[in-house]
Amino acid sequence: MAASTTLTVNYTRIQTLTSYFQHFNRRSPFRQSLKRHAATVVSGRELARQIHKEVQSDTAKLVAQGNRPHLSVILVGDDHASHTYMRNKARAASLLGMSSSTIFRPSSVSQEEMLELIDKFNRDRSISGLLVQLPLPEKDVDGFHIVNIGKLCLDQRCMVPATAAAVWEIIRRTGIETVGKNVLVVGHSKNVGMPIAMLLHSDRNHERPGGDATVVMAHRCTPLPRLKELASLADIVIAAAGVPHLITADILKEGAAVIDVGINRLQDPVTGKLRLVGDVDFEAVKEKAGFISPVPGGVGPMAVAMVMKNTVTAAKNAPTY
Amino acid sequence: MAASTTLTVNYTRIQTLTSYFQHFNRRSPFRQSLKRHAATVVSGRELARQIHKEVQSDTAKLVAQGNRPHLSVILVGDDHASHTYMRNKARAASLLGMSSSTIFRPSSVSQEEMLELIDKFNRDRSISGLLVQLPLPEKDVDGFHIVNIGKLCLDQRCMVPATAAAVWEIIRRTGIETVGKNVLVVGHSKNVGMPIAMLLHSDRNHERPGGDATVVMAHRCTPLPRLKELASLADIVIAAAGVPHLITADILKEGAAVIDVGINRLQDPVTGKLRLVGDVDFEAVKEKAGFISPVPGGVGPMAVAMVMKNTVTAAKNAPTY
Repeated sequence: MAASTTLTVNYTRIQTLTSYFQHFNRRSPFRQSLKRHAATVVSGRELARQIHKEVQSDTAKLVAQGNRPHLSVILVGDDHASHTYMRNKARAASLLGMSSSTIFRPSSVSQEEMLELIDKFNRDRSISGLLVQLPLPEKDVDGFHIVNIGKLCLDQRCMVPATAAAVWEIIRRTGIETVGKNVLVVGHSKNVGMPIAMLLHSDRNHERPGGDATVVMAHRCTPLPRLKELASLADIVIAAAGVPHLITADILKEGAAVIDVGINRLQDPVTGKLRLVGDVDFEAVKEKAGFISPVPGGVGPMAVAMVMKNTVTAAKNAPTY
Repeated sequence: MAASTTLTVNYTRIQTLTSYFQHFNRRSPFRQSLKRHAATVVSGRELARQIHKEVQSDTAKLVAQGNRPHLSVILVGDDHASHTYMRNKARAASLLGMSSSTIFRPSSVSQEEMLELIDKFNRDRSISGLLVQLPLPEKDVDGFHIVNIGKLCLDQRCMVPATAAAVWEIIRRTGIETVGKNVLVVGHSKNVGMPIAMLLHSDRNHERPGGDATVVMAHRCTPLPRLKELASLADIVIAAAGVPHLITADILKEGAAVIDVGINRLQDPVTGKLRLVGDVDFEAVKEKAGFISPVPGGVGPMAVAMVMKNTVTAAKNAPTY
């Protein structure tokens, strides 16, 4: 019996040591102390403010040169969320010293009329940036033209689609390391998941620098056990699936950085009110992650800031005449 | 001591059962029997022959309509490998009933002259397909224009770059399942790794159908232990890193499908002759994998076949006049 007891004790001790070392090795480099703290909550609002300041100063310089950036918006249909999103952008533009205008079209507008309108706007030299907001959110075309996506995927200088740019800037400005790290991108939409994967996996020395991370592209066809397996290996998780509470604390690695791109409206069972939640189980994940960006107040305001930044870039690149 | 011995025996038995079930669960669906056989060696030459036959019959129809597909090649510089590659394509075209022509330019050719030449060829209605072979192999532009890459990444109908198309066809024609499977793509080049990842991770119901697989994009910045971890989870491994013997049997899951895109020239230590090897340790991996495509005779001949197929598609899509 003594032998057996000794064995048990040793085994327990080995277990403890093993999990200690695993714990130690698996800790994110972002966290300096071994004592467990809740995650740093990355404020998209705060970072957006930084970018707005930079854009404001760039805009002032352009205005002094007689080249005030102008953002034009074509808004199709009467989707409430689209209108709110647009109003936020128009307000941001005016606060930063840019002019803006919005053209409304009914959702019955013909493809031909749309193409003519876009072509006219493209040739109009007084317009620096153009946004077309279609009724379906997945057709949002901020920085989302075939040629632009071609350049993006070939690591050439381009307009990075606003939401992907927002994720990129959050990572950069928070000082989260990407080179050689494991990134899990959940969701393969063309306007969010795909461009984020493109940015993060590509070469950091290319014209449009990438993150040089190992990137996993997971999506609705990824079986849940597989998703968990991959999440447990990830240093950075980017949730863009549109599924509330998809990313829970138990599947994450301690100290991981979690960026929540989901925007889901859930009805509160008590008050009956609609509230905005992301794809991440925020309260629990906050206790395990190293960094977390909240919904609302994370990627959303940053995306608006990136549209403003893109508009200024377009104004800068416009031929002087 | 007896207790200790019993425990050891039990432990061993649990180990054995565990690895048996792991082994069972991890077996690829491609393999039906539990008895271990060597991998099916996928012959790129054989599949290429199939495609050539299909292309030949399409070509005959087009010729009957007075629209013989014509492949034009602009070959820049005097790189030996480029010349060989081009000669193989010209020979394939003529065997299939297409006409072809090659224009040679020195590597000192100006960017301006190249653009003019390409523009002229693009407007020439007698030319169905155009290949520009630049001195650096990574600049091969088979199906590799910004607009085309934009369409590819947005899952729109397009010319799929030849090597990526070759990998796709090998997977499809061998009957390897991709939906919900784990795919590891090693190498993030813009002409091979990136388009392969785009094809395999995207939605199977889109205009340009994807594989709906979970795709990992690994590359030179992926630490080796991480690569091993990810390889052990992969149902399909696509090796396009240009590193001989990178993919060894020990890191693979039993029954995985292994597609070797590497082309490396190694000097035989005995004979001193150069020989072609891929990124996969073929002899050992063959014993563990479910499917394996060899080098030479795998992706190479398939890529030539896909260029022929792309040329016929271009001829079909050309406006009749």
